[in-house]
Amino acid sequence: MIKQITSPQNPLIKHFVQLKEKSRQRKKTGQFLIEGKRELSLAIKGGYQIETLLFYPDLFSESEAKAMSRYGIEIIEISQEVFQKLAHRDTTEGVIAVVKSKRHLLEDLKLSNKNPLILVAEAPEKPGNVGALLRTADAANVDAVIIANPKSDLYNPNIIRSSVGCVFTTQIAMANTTEAIEFLKHYHFNIYSAILQDSEPYNTQDYTLPTAIVVGTEATGLTQAWRDAATQNISIPMQGIIDSMNVSVAAGILIFEAKRQRDFK
Amino acid sequence: MIKQITSPQNPLIKHFVQLKEKSRQRKKTGQFLIEGKRELSLAIKGGYQIETLLFYPDLFSESEAKAMSRYGIEIIEISQEVFQKLAHRDTTEGVIAVVKSKRHLLEDLKLSNKNPLILVAEAPEKPGNVGALLRTADAANVDAVIIANPKSDLYNPNIIRSSVGCVFTTQIAMANTTEAIEFLKHYHFNIYSAILQDSEPYNTQDYTLPTAIVVGTEATGLTQAWRDAATQNISIPMQGIIDSMNVSVAAGILIFEAKRQRDFK
Repeated sequence: MIKQITSPQNPLIKHFVQLKEKSRQRKKTGQFLIEGKRELSLAIKGGYQIETLLFYPDLFSESEAKAMSRYGIEIIEISQEVFQKLAHRDTTEGVIAVVKSKRHLLEDLKLSNKNPLILVAEAPEKPGNVGALLRTADAANVDAVIIANPKSDLYNPNIIRSSVGCVFTTQIAMANTTEAIEFLKHYHFNIYSAILQDSEPYNTQDYTLPTAIVVGTEATGLTQAWRDAATQNISIPMQGIIDSMNVSVAAGILIFEAKRQRDFK
Repeated sequence: MIKQITSPQNPLIKHFVQLKEKSRQRKKTGQFLIEGKRELSLAIKGGYQIETLLFYPDLFSESEAKAMSRYGIEIIEISQEVFQKLAHRDTTEGVIAVVKSKRHLLEDLKLSNKNPLILVAEAPEKPGNVGALLRTADAANVDAVIIANPKSDLYNPNIIRSSVGCVFTTQIAMANTTEAIEFLKHYHFNIYSAILQDSEPYNTQDYTLPTAIVVGTEATGLTQAWRDAATQNISIPMQGIIDSMNVSVAAGILIFEAKRQRDFK
């Protein structure tokens, strides 16, 4: 018999709702929610451990859920009411999983490439921007993304959604800026900080050696530490009326200039 | 005496609310709303004609409003209640203007540059993506943006907001795809359509002649007409697990490769 939960008042469901809504709860328990088949399969591909699978049988078949239970996952059939309570937006796939968080430590990063390319984003503010950065990192197959001085945890439902699951397939470390700089210096990275002051145009630099490209927030840019640590500050020549660019667009331009110089290898 | 309106039920205010909410109403009247000082000053810079200026005196001074009335603009003092009814989100600047739309016809585009660079976006879906595309276009100082088969009007409040006002400072034409292709062919543009099939890597092409870079939607890409019209299909090598990229990031990478080849001139 498959376990069934029909009431949104069920304590377990209340706990899961908290996982959706509260970063603090995710941190405390080391769990978070994933919804949707595609996201779920990317998380499995990325080595995430699914703890519980909730399915609403009108939208997700019991046999599909049972197939997953072979992997030792607890499966629970839920009512429409419970599903709507847990789903982030108007999801139509009827499946939500409770998943174990990863640690995202610098020391866990595996840099197998001889001349690795890392994207660093300091304190990115909007979940949508983090998602777009992770999509760019995936497309460019960078060796890792470091989020320095993170403003939120990585398992914010809006980050998962806007990354279209890239959050599960990219190597990501979270650290404060000091630790991130120490790490990059220890591994002899050239650090290119995207800063207007004392900068060279981004296209004049050589990104074929171990390279970290560092972008800050749209509002305040990078902190002083990244200027001090930079091998070279770089900037994208801005020739418009408005002196700003979407941070994920800027990161895309810089990362793909590095990829171009590396012949996309 | 400055005209005052305190009731959200006032017919004029009701009309203005419709301008905010309904594309149809904007099209019918040729008017739209702008809120915020920065956006307003960019619209004036872009040659837009302000018809009416509404201000909430706790946030925007009467003297500032009067200074604007010298330009023949009608000014109206509004109550907090009316301001909240008209403001798109939590704006704190207390100023909203009713502005006359522009036509955005292909035939109005001025291409003074000998080797112009144009960004074409076909049927972009999300206002946030249109805004980011326009920011990129501004930063690169492209000669024009063409929105082919537009899904919404340009004066959607979310487009204005996400473009941070670039919608007012960039030359933009709206047209259907057939007209856009005719226009580009008539002026001997090389057309580079971002399409995976039969494509060459974007970085192998020469963008120094009159160039149109064409991007489609994330969901369905470009229509067949753009493949048929292309001088060359181009693609960004995707080396990740997820075969997609944010459309505004992709456009940024392509446009700035063209700029790089042109030495940012």
